[in-house]
Amino acid sequence: VTAQRRRQRSPARQLSEREAILLLEQLFDAGGGRVGPARPRVVLGIGDDAAVLRGGSGLMVWSVDVCVEGIHFERAWLRLQDVGWRSLQAALSDLAAMGARPLAALCSLILPGTTTRAELRALGSGQAESADAGGCPILGGNISRGSELSVTTAVLGVAARVGQRSGARPGHDLWLVGDVGLAAAGLSLVARRAFLRRRGPGQQAEQVCVQAWRRPRALIRQGRTLVRRARAVIDLSDGLAGDAARLAEASGVRLLLEERPLRQLLRPELCAACTSLGSDPLSLALYGGEDYALLAAGPPRQRPRYAHRIGRVLRGSGVWLEPSSGGHPRRLREGFDHLRK
Amino acid sequence: VTAQRRRQRSPARQLSEREAILLLEQLFDAGGGRVGPARPRVVLGIGDDAAVLRGGSGLMVWSVDVCVEGIHFERAWLRLQDVGWRSLQAALSDLAAMGARPLAALCSLILPGTTTRAELRALGSGQAESADAGGCPILGGNISRGSELSVTTAVLGVAARVGQRSGARPGHDLWLVGDVGLAAAGLSLVARRAFLRRRGPGQQAEQVCVQAWRRPRALIRQGRTLVRRARAVIDLSDGLAGDAARLAEASGVRLLLEERPLRQLLRPELCAACTSLGSDPLSLALYGGEDYALLAAGPPRQRPRYAHRIGRVLRGSGVWLEPSSGGHPRRLREGFDHLRK
Repeated sequence: VTAQRRRQRSPARQLSEREAILLLEQLFDAGGGRVGPARPRVVLGIGDDAAVLRGGSGLMVWSVDVCVEGIHFERAWLRLQDVGWRSLQAALSDLAAMGARPLAALCSLILPGTTTRAELRALGSGQAESADAGGCPILGGNISRGSELSVTTAVLGVAARVGQRSGARPGHDLWLVGDVGLAAAGLSLVARRAFLRRRGPGQQAEQVCVQAWRRPRALIRQGRTLVRRARAVIDLSDGLAGDAARLAEASGVRLLLEERPLRQLLRPELCAACTSLGSDPLSLALYGGEDYALLAAGPPRQRPRYAHRIGRVLRGSGVWLEPSSGGHPRRLREGFDHLRK
Repeated sequence: VTAQRRRQRSPARQLSEREAILLLEQLFDAGGGRVGPARPRVVLGIGDDAAVLRGGSGLMVWSVDVCVEGIHFERAWLRLQDVGWRSLQAALSDLAAMGARPLAALCSLILPGTTTRAELRALGSGQAESADAGGCPILGGNISRGSELSVTTAVLGVAARVGQRSGARPGHDLWLVGDVGLAAAGLSLVARRAFLRRRGPGQQAEQVCVQAWRRPRALIRQGRTLVRRARAVIDLSDGLAGDAARLAEASGVRLLLEERPLRQLLRPELCAACTSLGSDPLSLALYGGEDYALLAAGPPRQRPRYAHRIGRVLRGSGVWLEPSSGGHPRRLREGFDHLRK
């Protein structure tokens, strides 16, 4: 690309999430000092699911997550109670990936000026239910007005040891804990129903998918035992393909997903819902986000019973899919970008 | 108010920040369990400047703060670099009020789709400078798209003991650390200049005010020594009158501000700027926010040299001003509400 073409292109080009993160990483490393003697309590900084600090007898694991109206949810599709529930579980899922036990949460709300008491009650009840289910009391936070509703949740947890994204090595197997694709199917079903102005419960398979999307659960318990066996862990918030690419990059390896075991793991409810949606369940599993399942890599003999083998780690880079047909693996495109549409 | 009048009024009535906080406090206390045996590590929950957890050898102090475009700043008035600086200092000011030493920060950004690399660089540079100045490295965070720019900052600090809002008792004096009113004058000057489309440095007094607004500094060092002497501390983010009302309520006391010592403490630059603004400097000191000074209450003989006496603690409730003229004290209205305009 010549300098002139670059100049012409750049005003129209949206900043990508990856570019934005790399830029901030540079700025914050320069400004705030590096991990090392100058930051004796910092164990892990930017680039993983959470930051890790040395705290007393163990490690403190600390993360922040945000849900924005119009980006992460539409009120026509999701009750505010569900928005509250999901916002906390999404933050807890980062702790799950690090193998941490939740200690407490803080939440920061941006509320439109028209917000009613009933709406705030619905949102807050969902957060409180979620906090109760996750064993993670909300200790406080902050409220501000703004034009669009958003919920930012900071969570603090403790761990004896933490899972990272960077430990996958050639020879390891890839393990999946939890379901993938259900939440994306649920979202599609809800969006279509809202579009058709249909009400009612739908079929049971559809209900399972919608519930997976509305009420995800961070896999805290599984995460805590998983980090003792695995060498790398990441939670799947942006889709299996996209988050696997992050793990592959952090570890400097290629990940090969195998279509056959992956398809066998897909829930029958997902396949049933996909029939009525006209979607391919594997595609939802790979590119649909917000499942909050866990992807891990580790030595084959270390795999826990509740983790399912879905591929292997190779030398190279990127995420590839080995077709059931036995043909050549193909490279998968990456997942969701939070800054681009 | 009859039920009917209440019904008629309620659709037009905006939820206040206080109502919102009380509602969430109820919900989160019920949902997440109470401080006590069920939450062994939680020392202080909702209702103070920060949450406090027991962590290893001391206390972990944890807070979150948000800056929203259109509410906390306008881009016509403030460079993005200053937005970055202020967002971190505002969060650090909560740690200052608790007497904590900053450990690290996480930031969560909501960026409009049109955000350029140069804009993100400006914002991030301001955050990085601020992190450096505050000795508080930024360890990571989160980015999302949204329609309006906002910066949410979570900060974690450590303390041997913490300052709270609830310890003021009749017989204590009221102490002020830092300047009040300058930031509000700075904001008025910048807004007027933008309105008049005037450029240029202005007079030196005006520069001091504008700088106080653009580049506040959390009083971390003073806060750490202040909590050893004072029985109650709060930081002044929403104006002296408003934050004093919070301290009065948390402590169950009346605060009497004395006009004479308070006026003597006002900076000459504030008085000069107020002449050109046609404002009363005392009014800016009482109702102008974002000073990030500290207000404390403690036994008269415990007052540190850098803290100035500005009033006293009495039985009763509310915040009152004793006029220099010696007339009857008058009750002050409360300050800024983040949910109402």
